[in-house]
Amino acid sequence: MNNTNYTLLCDFYELTMGNGYFLSEKRNETAYFDVFFRSIPDGGGFAIAAGLEQIIDYIKNLKFTEKDIEFLRSKGVFDEGFLSYLLDFKFTGDIYAIPEGTPIFPNEPILTVKAPAIEAQFIETFLLLAINHQSLIATKANRIVRAAQGRPIAEFGSRRAQGSDGAILGARAAYIGGCAATACTISDRDYGIPATGTMAHSWVQMFDTEYEAFEAYCKLYPNNATLLVDTYDVLGSGVPNAIKAFKEVLVPKGIRKFGVRIDSGDIAYLTKKIRKMMNEAGLPECKIVVSNSMDEHIIRDIIAQGAEVDSFGVGERLITAKSEPVFGGVYKLVAVEKNGEVIPKIKISENPEKITNPHFKKLYRLYDKATGKAQADLLCAYDEDFSDATELELFDPSNTWKRKTFRNFEIRELQVPIFKNGECVYNPPAIADVRAYCLTQVDKLWDEVTRFENPHRYYVDLSQKLWDIKHSLLHSAGKRK
Amino acid sequence: MNNTNYTLLCDFYELTMGNGYFLSEKRNETAYFDVFFRSIPDGGGFAIAAGLEQIIDYIKNLKFTEKDIEFLRSKGVFDEGFLSYLLDFKFTGDIYAIPEGTPIFPNEPILTVKAPAIEAQFIETFLLLAINHQSLIATKANRIVRAAQGRPIAEFGSRRAQGSDGAILGARAAYIGGCAATACTISDRDYGIPATGTMAHSWVQMFDTEYEAFEAYCKLYPNNATLLVDTYDVLGSGVPNAIKAFKEVLVPKGIRKFGVRIDSGDIAYLTKKIRKMMNEAGLPECKIVVSNSMDEHIIRDIIAQGAEVDSFGVGERLITAKSEPVFGGVYKLVAVEKNGEVIPKIKISENPEKITNPHFKKLYRLYDKATGKAQADLLCAYDEDFSDATELELFDPSNTWKRKTFRNFEIRELQVPIFKNGECVYNPPAIADVRAYCLTQVDKLWDEVTRFENPHRYYVDLSQKLWDIKHSLLHSAGKRK
Repeated sequence: MNNTNYTLLCDFYELTMGNGYFLSEKRNETAYFDVFFRSIPDGGGFAIAAGLEQIIDYIKNLKFTEKDIEFLRSKGVFDEGFLSYLLDFKFTGDIYAIPEGTPIFPNEPILTVKAPAIEAQFIETFLLLAINHQSLIATKANRIVRAAQGRPIAEFGSRRAQGSDGAILGARAAYIGGCAATACTISDRDYGIPATGTMAHSWVQMFDTEYEAFEAYCKLYPNNATLLVDTYDVLGSGVPNAIKAFKEVLVPKGIRKFGVRIDSGDIAYLTKKIRKMMNEAGLPECKIVVSNSMDEHIIRDIIAQGAEVDSFGVGERLITAKSEPVFGGVYKLVAVEKNGEVIPKIKISENPEKITNPHFKKLYRLYDKATGKAQADLLCAYDEDFSDATELELFDPSNTWKRKTFRNFEIRELQVPIFKNGECVYNPPAIADVRAYCLTQVDKLWDEVTRFENPHRYYVDLSQKLWDIKHSLLHSAGKRK
Repeated sequence: MNNTNYTLLCDFYELTMGNGYFLSEKRNETAYFDVFFRSIPDGGGFAIAAGLEQIIDYIKNLKFTEKDIEFLRSKGVFDEGFLSYLLDFKFTGDIYAIPEGTPIFPNEPILTVKAPAIEAQFIETFLLLAINHQSLIATKANRIVRAAQGRPIAEFGSRRAQGSDGAILGARAAYIGGCAATACTISDRDYGIPATGTMAHSWVQMFDTEYEAFEAYCKLYPNNATLLVDTYDVLGSGVPNAIKAFKEVLVPKGIRKFGVRIDSGDIAYLTKKIRKMMNEAGLPECKIVVSNSMDEHIIRDIIAQGAEVDSFGVGERLITAKSEPVFGGVYKLVAVEKNGEVIPKIKISENPEKITNPHFKKLYRLYDKATGKAQADLLCAYDEDFSDATELELFDPSNTWKRKTFRNFEIRELQVPIFKNGECVYNPPAIADVRAYCLTQVDKLWDEVTRFENPHRYYVDLSQKLWDIKHSLLHSAGKRK
């Protein structure tokens, strides 16, 4: 568990609103908020949920220090009673969430909070930040992993990450999405993500000749020699020197496990040449690693062109999700509770795609029993129960005449309880299990949904009851003005 | 000072190489590394240096704990002597750097390290991460600030940041680049970036009617009421209800300082309508704040269309530098020292733009005395001195027949000493001073350099001596193979 206290990593308005609720009768009202997102990065067909474990740590560590209170007092806008209340602040509510590694779709509640209004509002920023960051990177990593068709991907991007946690937790999220390893050492120590690495160009430059650099490295790490062959001239010197070092240092010891890495030049052309040179030198086992501005599109293209690559190192385009570096998760009020009654709430806007799904909800996923494939997700009100359903007619919430009846399915609820009355009731699985679960769940999606371009839109439908509630609120919204 | 220990936030290869240097005679060699970048994000004409203060904290906090050593031992690749050495590891070298807030250009050493090879290599990842992240955000922020032509920009993006430091230090970098404030509370507590904020849509939804929400807020914060008017219908209910709340709660108290915010819809259209409605209601002082997916291009366009905006909140497109989320700073060996002699080193590659400027260098900037404008930067060898120059003929390093003679200039060295023999000799200025210095220095650039599209390429030239060293190394590189 990470014990960093991120309590004040909040938007200032969460405190100004909290102060307002504290001074009014709203202080004792229970609010329900959903975290959901509206569109899938890179035009993909699904995203991967990640970041929940950091949210659990954050909630457990929530604490305003005396220094925090002094700082807040200095802002000159907070009531003294509110500041005293903050000194004893803790989260006392419930949290439900979709486990990490699960494929997720737009407009589904990834996480739901039920808590006194001040608490539920206060945790907004960190919850969004954790889910937005790690889901973004896990989703991107999964695209890159799928493009590589079984070739391992190592995450190499710490130096280009957006801040320390961008590197540290980015490596964690990339692993959840299917990467095999990271270059980031601290992510291994703290999160168990296997850290690997060999040499930089500077190693080669530090020696008088390239051959001396390679020879020294093979002697030092005979069981893990991957030589960087592009410091001066890949085919003219790098590969011939690597062949010589392997033959002089490793082969005589019976070692046939070694490799070369290139970080520049035309990957398809160079790797084919390298494979040919290695074969002709009697070293067909030599692994070829490449690592120059890779992403899912380049990897797919060079594999299609017959590039001879055994594994990839992927840096900046993964660790920042460069092609679309924002996962647009939002945190919206969906209900309030008054005298034990849950009252659904909606947010309307000039932009129709910003209209929310109201109410405290449940989320089900249907899997076809014959194929094991995920067929559709169903959002319903919290007090509906479809867990024993054997036949379901679902309809498109925008085009309600589009209807489809499902039979012979397994149905499971996607959200699980994380906190109950402020106590953590969830034991996060080991990170390797999260990764394995993610790969298994992605396999349960139809190929049409996993396509990189123009994927099929997966069904996320509303129950009739929830649809009725939403449309009733839309039509009566004028009354709230 | 931030006391977080990021020692193991390193690429694993820095440790495998360090182990190799430790076990060889290279252990006692001094290495020189430069941090530099190759291209300016968004096709801009300059970038803004940032991140140095976090590097200073990092270097001061460097320490391998017993737990770290145990973890490294478990990897099974490190020599026990090396692990013992790491227990006492500290940085003993020199660091020179361009101060934060300075406009910087490609291929200039933003930061230079002179240290024993193991130490110099070890700190690579964190140095790059800090400079790449904060320079990226400061550069993007400065573009957005310039687009707004004097209207204040508040940074609102924590929830979409790539990890905690993406939010916390992103707010710091945005402030250096010229933002006026942040929504991120902890950045105020820890770095003195002014935190501000008012209300979310959930505040409005928590009340039975929009008017009640506005009325309650005006009563609560009469001196800082910025009402969010797009929860239901901006022109139909939001603005009329805001007008009513201002007139009933604030105007009778003599308060004429208030505002409205919109976070959706067509900004140009809506803000003009809002201004008209406010004027007609006798509230021309009402500030209009907008915050929907802003960046420098949208801000420029809506201002050109006559949008009535007093200030902007900018979120995801700033905090992730969405249009180009990577600042490609690299860390390259430029020299080694043997028996007191500094021997320049070069890195060659199939990609010509990846060829480095070798040697331990100095960097000068020339300012025209008549206009105050920056005219050119000059890179030279460490043992050259141009500080008293009164006339300089500079030439384009790629096209050496392009020559220009400068006279009547002031010349100053851009790098300053940060660490000497492991001791910090630099006192970072207050963050508000860094921000003011940045704005002043950007003013010293010609308009042609600050243009958003197709800016003029600023001169970064090499002294004749440095040019000769580089070309001699290029021609003799074959010998190193």
